[in-house]
Amino acid sequence: MSSISYLPIGIVESSFREPRRPEEMRAVPSRLVLATRFAAEMAALEVGQHLWVVYHLHLIEPISDHHPVNLFTKRIANRPNPIGFTLVRIVAVEGTTLTVVGLDAVDGTPILDLKPYQRIWDEPPVHRPSARRLNAP
Amino acid sequence: MSSISYLPIGIVESSFREPRRPEEMRAVPSRLVLATRFAAEMAALEVGQHLWVVYHLHLIEPISDHHPVNLFTKRIANRPNPIGFTLVRIVAVEGTTLTVVGLDAVDGTPILDLKPYQRIWDEPPVHRPSARRLNAP
Repeated sequence: MSSISYLPIGIVESSFREPRRPEEMRAVPSRLVLATRFAAEMAALEVGQHLWVVYHLHLIEPISDHHPVNLFTKRIANRPNPIGFTLVRIVAVEGTTLTVVGLDAVDGTPILDLKPYQRIWDEPPVHRPSARRLNAP
Repeated sequence: MSSISYLPIGIVESSFREPRRPEEMRAVPSRLVLATRFAAEMAALEVGQHLWVVYHLHLIEPISDHHPVNLFTKRIANRPNPIGFTLVRIVAVEGTTLTVVGLDAVDGTPILDLKPYQRIWDEPPVHRPSARRLNAP
């Protein structure tokens, strides 16, 4: 299969230069600095909205073989394609810079995409609610 | 910013050759055929689990300029970097092939990653429940 190339649309500014525990990183606001050509698209965003930030884990050395067995059952960073996505909340919009909380990416992380959170698609359906109700005490 | 390259880890097999409404596509099972080098990692997956499938929308021509203004507020496919991710449920695991429901990717879509769904990270926190309770009638 041939390789796929993407061009970053912006970069993360964070006080974290190296990865720390995700909980620790997510508690501190980060800035998403997008290329100026996205000014009109950024103006459509609002404080309080939830966004997915899709980014490249640039400190990770991609490994093509000998993956950990829990590769698909854990959110470990060492992956064949080190793509991360994290749900954030917008706390400020200024030009093509967003301030967000919830991000766990280090300073200098290349941003590949921003997508709105959409509950109807991004939340697992609740299965068999009627069956569960029948079993309730 | 320099470009980033990824190598697909597998491919989607679907009865849809061209994009249709996501609702229509998600209702039909698809197969995720991964490279055989992922046999051990695939064996850790179980029927019923929810997974994110990260994929490249290979039918989309990337556009570097003149994006729609709703680029970051809608999940439209025409994006600077046409990366998609969709939440699916595993219905069968056979070797390095997964059968899933919920995917809205066409036949031949290159797969970049699979990640487990994790509610604690993938669901927006409920904000200010106490304030909301105070305002309740």
